Amino acid sequence: MPSIGRRLAAEGIGSFFLFACVIGSGIMAEHLSGGNDAVALLGNTIATGAILFVLITMLGPISGAHFNPAVSLVAASRKELPWGDAAAYIIAQLGFGILGAWAAHLMFELPTLQLSVKARTGLGQWTGEAIATFGLILTILGTVRYRREWVPASVALYITAAYWFTSSTSFANPAITVARSLSDTFAGISPADVPLFIVAQLTGAALAGILAKWLFPPAIQ
Amino acid sequence: MPSIGRRLAAEGIGSFFLFACVIGSGIMAEHLSGGNDAVALLGNTIATGAILFVLITMLGPISGAHFNPAVSLVAASRKELPWGDAAAYIIAQLGFGILGAWAAHLMFELPTLQLSVKARTGLGQWTGEAIATFGLILTILGTVRYRREWVPASVALYITAAYWFTSSTSFANPAITVARSLSDTFAGISPADVPLFIVAQLTGAALAGILAKWLFPPAIQ
Amino acid sequence: MPSIGRRLAAEGIGSFFLFACVIGSGIMAEHLSGGNDAVALLGNTIATGAILFVLITMLGPISGAHFNPAVSLVAASRKELPWGDAAAYIIAQLGFGILGAWAAHLMFELPTLQLSVKARTGLGQWTGEAIATFGLILTILGTVRYRREWVPASVALYITAAYWFTSSTSFANPAITVARSLSDTFAGISPADVPLFIVAQLTGAALAGILAKWLFPPAIQ
Amino acid sequence: MPSIGRRLAAEGIGSFFLFACVIGSGIMAEHLSGGNDAVALLGNTIATGAILFVLITMLGPISGAHFNPAVSLVAASRKELPWGDAAAYIIAQLGFGILGAWAAHLMFELPTLQLSVKARTGLGQWTGEAIATFGLILTILGTVRYRREWVPASVALYITAAYWFTSSTSFANPAITVARSLSDTFAGISPADVPLFIVAQLTGAALAGILAKWLFPPAIQ
Repeated sequence: MPSIGRRLAAEGIGSFFLFACVIGSGIMAEHLSGGNDAVALLGNTIATGAILFVLITMLGPISGAHFNPAVSLVAASRKELPWGDAAAYIIAQLGFGILGAWAAHLMFELPTLQLSVKARTGLGQWTGEAIATFGLILTILGTVRYRREWVPASVALYITAAYWFTSSTSFANPAITVARSLSDTFAGISPADVPLFIVAQLTGAALAGILAKWLFPPAIQ
Repeated sequence: MPSIGRRLAAEGIGSFFLFACVIGSGIMAEHLSGGNDAVALLGNTIATGAILFVLITMLGPISGAHFNPAVSLVAASRKELPWGDAAAYIIAQLGFGILGAWAAHLMFELPTLQLSVKARTGLGQWTGEAIATFGLILTILGTVRYRREWVPASVALYITAAYWFTSSTSFANPAITVARSLSDTFAGISPADVPLFIVAQLTGAALAGILAKWLFPPAIQ
Repeated sequence: MPSIGRRLAAEGIGSFFLFACVIGSGIMAEHLSGGNDAVALLGNTIATGAILFVLITMLGPISGAHFNPAVSLVAASRKELPWGDAAAYIIAQLGFGILGAWAAHLMFELPTLQLSVKARTGLGQWTGEAIATFGLILTILGTVRYRREWVPASVALYITAAYWFTSSTSFANPAITVARSLSDTFAGISPADVPLFIVAQLTGAALAGILAKWLFPPAIQ
Repeated sequence: MPSIGRRLAAEGIGSFFLFACVIGSGIMAEHLSGGNDAVALLGNTIATGAILFVLITMLGPISGAHFNPAVSLVAASRKELPWGDAAAYIIAQLGFGILGAWAAHLMFELPTLQLSVKARTGLGQWTGEAIATFGLILTILGTVRYRREWVPASVALYITAAYWFTSSTSFANPAITVARSLSDTFAGISPADVPLFIVAQLTGAALAGILAKWLFPPAIQ
């Protein structure tokens, strides 16, 4: 296993580019789309799916390419990652991810420090976040188990789909939920709505972790 | 072969996500597109193709990833699946698929129980469903025979294309046809139009099954 | 090598679906796009690229998946296909491809027999067809030589790009040029403009064939 | 290693098609999109990503498929390419790339010789170019090291994402920056703005080269 320094660098760089892409492509898409939100979401979706494929392909061999506290927590609960490493991963994801959000603001010449005012709340969106994160964790655990070569494409395309089939456009990631709350743009979420999104995400992740133990048993069984 | 319980769970989970995605992304796309149906279909197409790739990659090693009674019936007719298992597969596809449609309604805060009023009928659309299902079954049987690694991408991209080259946007799946009749949204179909869609689909599937015996003979020949 | 009957069936079925998809998705895209031709071309592009990947993956192991007289002629000139087989391939491509065009008309409930009135002419478009076919043949010969696994994705994505970077939207295929002249729809071309398109395509193909002998020498050299 | 003649031909042909596609698809997209720049950028993005995949797959085995002076300079600095070869690569990239831009003008029947008047300047865009090129070089070095099979898809999808998450739509290539200055179209850049774009790109590339030595050490370590 690579050194913890290189692994944290991989988590940090990946989170920086992922979050910069989610927020930056949202800004670009909203700016260009002239009010047609479906076209804006198409641009946001294609950019997010594409960067996910790249980052997981490039950085997966080093850190596992989590970029997502829910993934690191599930990995720790499965004893695939020490709990201390998981905590360090999460700090790197949050820290560098927020830098990525600020880099997006800088690139588009917006004020660095912002707070979103976009309300994202309600049973529908919470259900969506739970289902989206449930599916994300299941996708990761199933493809890592059976089709390791196809993990990057599967995760990228899962999020591509989930941007469209959930009413919240699938954040499915507690760190990116926090980072989005610091951006008053297309991808934003009001800080007050963050906690329940994270509760829904972790609930979905935990359920997927439990199901995966039975559905995708280790190879030695 | 995995236990029947795990295989039915795989068919159920896959059908749940597939149907939730087809219907949910249709709702999202119609809601955002401001009346431009080509943009809405683009969103619906990209989401559907993406989730198909993911679900077949993740669940194919367990159940074969049918999510479609036409596929299960063809598999049974080729003696690749016992008829009793095929019946159980179909019940799981229908049951969990309808739950997926209802989950989409819940996520978008629409009434759970609905019936579509969208007419989808006529010789053109029936021909389209027959051709679409014929091509789907041929794609599955040909790529499973010669390029097993590329089955998920092939099926996903086949449906991506077929959404656009048929006048019905290619349901090509009796279970999803039933589930769509329970959703008065972008992806819906009036219940009265369901039976002839299914007849057309099964006709195309049967013809493809016959052709494939000659065109893609087993490796031992 | 599979029997000539199975190989001709593969060429015929592939040309049927390819041409039905090119023309059918054009009809769908134009119908839905409300006059925004960029959105229409996006739908037409995604459907065409997707079906190309599927058909080459599925049928390549049988016939080589030409679906294009320019490809069959280059293969014959390289002694990879007997000239008589190439002639039979071309007849299957034209015959079943035209059936595909008519199937698209049937699916969209348009009159079967049509002639396009869309003018596609001029030095710019002829240059485009020559460059497009030059690049297509080079892509096929180069990837077959070095990256056989990636031929379907490469050809599909080449056409995806070429739909956008040529002023004619890259027919790059004499058989599909003829079939499109029989469809007065988005993908059509006036019959009077067909011959010079084909001259340009075959010129580009011949130049690519010559260049490829030097650029991509056989492995035994 | 192939002869320098074949390698320079590969760099030239690849740059010709890449630059013709970037500029040609921009012209097509702007022409068709009726002023909706998000739709235009979608077309431009899909075409650019697709051709990159094809060209790297086809020509990578011959020349390494740089098509970009920043890549050739990094390769030389890592002693993977002699400095003299790198200089020849760059001349081929620039020369044939500009021919590609002119070919796009010819295909769309625009005057061959043009100068762009589109201003692209400011700290935001320079930051964007530096970040974009940093990420591009990191993507190439990381995937070449760990996932060689996936280099073409990774580079293509990186640029797909970067078109959307940077305010400059990610040129990330000094040669294409020069060629775009010779095209007064969607993809253009005013000649006066070229030098600082190139400075930003080379800065990002150099930083990525330094980071990659530590993050992606050679296999023998």
